Amino acid sequence: MRKNLFKLDPRIAQVTSFIKDLPFSRLLLMNDSNYPWLILVPRVTDKKEIFELSIKERVVLENEINLVSKLAHKLFKADKINIGALGNIVSQLHIHVIVRYENDPSWPKAAWSSGKEIPYTKKNLNSLISKIKLALKSL
Amino acid sequence: MRKNLFKLDPRIAQVTSFIKDLPFSRLLLMNDSNYPWLILVPRVTDKKEIFELSIKERVVLENEINLVSKLAHKLFKADKINIGALGNIVSQLHIHVIVRYENDPSWPKAAWSSGKEIPYTKKNLNSLISKIKLALKSL
Repeated sequence: MRKNLFKLDPRIAQVTSFIKDLPFSRLLLMNDSNYPWLILVPRVTDKKEIFELSIKERVVLENEINLVSKLAHKLFKADKINIGALGNIVSQLHIHVIVRYENDPSWPKAAWSSGKEIPYTKKNLNSLISKIKLALKSL
Repeated sequence: MRKNLFKLDPRIAQVTSFIKDLPFSRLLLMNDSNYPWLILVPRVTDKKEIFELSIKERVVLENEINLVSKLAHKLFKADKINIGALGNIVSQLHIHVIVRYENDPSWPKAAWSSGKEIPYTKKNLNSLISKIKLALKSL
């Protein structure tokens, strides 16, 4: 049996909530109520760049990014989806899928390091996670 | 004959230089000498989001992003590659592939809207474009 040594970086865990394990990536919600902000973390070890994945892994990841982008765009009536693979602060490979609105507090700038983060209330957080899980089920 | 109505948005054209047409995307260099900053613009019309592409187009684009990321990482000895599809300012679909260094002026923040842009000298710009074109040829 191949042991899966995947462990989520604690710095990512600290600012996100678990939504669901997709076939390849762990889907998380960033704790910033300014925008529905999803993060996909491929459940692999020691990868920093998308090009370090095998072709098979990369294709699965890209399909999951695509699925999540499309779902989030529809579910949250996005004006724009922002996709980013940065990793300058936390090097564990992770991909951001951020729902942007023309009236959100960072528009039109990038959402990273905005200094404007507003955490969810527990109630809103749970309700949002349920909403996303339900949408994922109906795919 | 299918007429290709692709036209590069003038706001992208204004801040970039042409490197090469890849099979699907136009490869450009951002005029910011802080980091080798590449942009891929799929030569399609009226697309804002990656998920709006056909599966075939998307796979070709992702291969080109991967190829350019890998090449730039090696050629410029990157500490990290930042990939982003934002489009909040210019909606024409385009993907950023940015070579980041731990001592670059925006590290570890995102490079977008840094306010720190330093244009290339004409000599440095030409030399860099030649270097990238040569690396692309040797693939």
